[in-house]
Amino acid sequence: MKKTILILIALMIGVSVVAQNDILSKTKVSETALFQRDYPRVDDEGRAYFCFYAPDAKSVVVDCQGKYEMTLQDDGYWIGHTDPLVVGFHFYHFVVDGAKVSDPMSETYCGSFGRSSAVEIPEGPEGDYYRPQKGVARGQVRSCVYFSEQSQEYRRCFVYTPAEYDAKPKKRYPVLYLQHGMCEDELGWANQGKMNHIMDNLIAEGKAEPMIVVMDSGDAAISFGFSTRGRRNTVATRDEFGATFGPILINDLIPFIDATFRTLDDRKHRAMAGLSWGGHQTFAFGLTNMDKFSWFGSFSGAIFMNEQAMKTAYDGVFADADKFNKDVNLLFIGAGSAENMGTAGLSAMLTKNGFEHEYYISEGTAHEWLTWRRCLHQFAPKLFK
Amino acid sequence: MKKTILILIALMIGVSVVAQNDILSKTKVSETALFQRDYPRVDDEGRAYFCFYAPDAKSVVVDCQGKYEMTLQDDGYWIGHTDPLVVGFHFYHFVVDGAKVSDPMSETYCGSFGRSSAVEIPEGPEGDYYRPQKGVARGQVRSCVYFSEQSQEYRRCFVYTPAEYDAKPKKRYPVLYLQHGMCEDELGWANQGKMNHIMDNLIAEGKAEPMIVVMDSGDAAISFGFSTRGRRNTVATRDEFGATFGPILINDLIPFIDATFRTLDDRKHRAMAGLSWGGHQTFAFGLTNMDKFSWFGSFSGAIFMNEQAMKTAYDGVFADADKFNKDVNLLFIGAGSAENMGTAGLSAMLTKNGFEHEYYISEGTAHEWLTWRRCLHQFAPKLFK
Repeated sequence: MKKTILILIALMIGVSVVAQNDILSKTKVSETALFQRDYPRVDDEGRAYFCFYAPDAKSVVVDCQGKYEMTLQDDGYWIGHTDPLVVGFHFYHFVVDGAKVSDPMSETYCGSFGRSSAVEIPEGPEGDYYRPQKGVARGQVRSCVYFSEQSQEYRRCFVYTPAEYDAKPKKRYPVLYLQHGMCEDELGWANQGKMNHIMDNLIAEGKAEPMIVVMDSGDAAISFGFSTRGRRNTVATRDEFGATFGPILINDLIPFIDATFRTLDDRKHRAMAGLSWGGHQTFAFGLTNMDKFSWFGSFSGAIFMNEQAMKTAYDGVFADADKFNKDVNLLFIGAGSAENMGTAGLSAMLTKNGFEHEYYISEGTAHEWLTWRRCLHQFAPKLFK
Repeated sequence: MKKTILILIALMIGVSVVAQNDILSKTKVSETALFQRDYPRVDDEGRAYFCFYAPDAKSVVVDCQGKYEMTLQDDGYWIGHTDPLVVGFHFYHFVVDGAKVSDPMSETYCGSFGRSSAVEIPEGPEGDYYRPQKGVARGQVRSCVYFSEQSQEYRRCFVYTPAEYDAKPKKRYPVLYLQHGMCEDELGWANQGKMNHIMDNLIAEGKAEPMIVVMDSGDAAISFGFSTRGRRNTVATRDEFGATFGPILINDLIPFIDATFRTLDDRKHRAMAGLSWGGHQTFAFGLTNMDKFSWFGSFSGAIFMNEQAMKTAYDGVFADADKFNKDVNLLFIGAGSAENMGTAGLSAMLTKNGFEHEYYISEGTAHEWLTWRRCLHQFAPKLFK
């Protein structure tokens, strides 16, 4: 019955004529489209427009902050669009007769889908801080390979060096270790986070100290929406999930970075921050290694702690507020106003128990990259001062 | 009729039982699989195995050096494999009821499909030269953003710096400009070409001079297999295709590199090479700017020149063999034995007319990345000596 209806809908759609030229004239190509591709597109109200070739499909849905049915054109392409979206970066994929696929016309970004398609909504006053600006000296994002003794594998990390780094060969720099969220990887902050532009602009304005930023994989990848056939292991428990990264960070990554770059290699000049699961990792691997770090940031962090557990959680770092306030240069906690990661409750609990911290709310954003771009933009100027 | 047959086949496949555990035991996960994914896989004879979730599809074919039908399992996953493939890197995509899609379980790489899936066949004696080796000092691949006055856009290029670069802040280095092929982009040489490992290993062995390698987009992307709806422009003519890159290279990129890195900035210390269309660009933009370059490499190059056209092609650089032999430090021409890009004929024509060059044939490889990894491995040691 369902199939019959789908076939009828497909037939009806097949003869419909959509004013494709109208779309082209009132929209522009998203910056996430591959070279010379016409889609994805965006309009002035923040709608995203998609196009996908599937001549024999019965149904194509685009999943982009909601599910939207697409309509088949005469030439085998399906076309559809979203409602207006918030400014910033949004993952999407197509569901083609039940198969989830990415868009061959989009650049791909690490996300819960694997290498996922995405669209960037550029309109509105927001965004100059995360775009390249004329006249601003630009740093580099360096892909580095190192061998991890912990995991007995070659690993790749990305290292942002500020624009002045090569020109001042005697100067040493503080280091921020910056982690992605669940299902993402070491590419996230530079590709969809635009961290290099955020840092370049802040440093050029004199708002942030020139610093090195290190981005590695938190090994917190999981494949939502697939059965276990697609995965190497069964789903890890919460405590196991991405737990392997802690020893790699402390024993392999930090020594590699300090040996390879001109770092200031003491705790006063080392920060750790992360978004979502990376916020959890910042608490789990940063706050529990107070000899290594003294600046911390959690953006929409997945922090599992209630008042009862506070004395013992994270190796007891929250057992003594006076000691915490003395040892910690900064604990920054941020989140979007349209998400619920328990951040407000966490901040209130910390305040009630005397733990100094900074609390930031990104207005109108959910669990998404605009929240985290804003968080980094707020957080970085407070570091190493 | 065709549809009826497809439905019958799908029904037959639907009740078939494939020994999935057999596949898992006799194969291993390809290095191109995303973190924690079980596929793509490879066996000891060089077959690649694939898995794709499409419960309602009538037909799924994997296109990987040939088209192979996949079979539907009880859980909605389709499974299939290739015949034995040559060692190295191979693009693939799925054709799902006529829709071409990439594999959500694979890393993505720029290719003719857009961001395409790929599998790496690792077996056989080949490959140590393009894999990281223990004890070898490793260079970095730096992502850099610059503004092109020619194209009025921010562009991204990748710059390989040798391992010693930061440790020797007074030393200046020769530069190789290394181009990708048609449909690929600035990511190709570092991601699927493994140029950083090739260079690290050659430099560590003392076989190649420490050098900077610059990889930018040749703007030679095109989308084969899509109708014009997916593309911004109609197909460019041969002369127009990627032609915009020449002025960007000469007027924007080279000055940016020389201003940003410690380069030796004369023609004696500047090389250009490329694969396929990048070989054409090396002839078109390298040989015609002899004041900028004196070392050249064309790997499976798309060189359009017959003996009649020789006197006038490429701004007449082949009009005078004596002048050519005096001006050019190296012209290296390579190709795979299993492809036909006219390279043997080009070499014979150059020899007949007195143009000195080196000619290299990669045995048993076609128009594929193993040919180009081998070409770079042969070419780089000859540079700047």
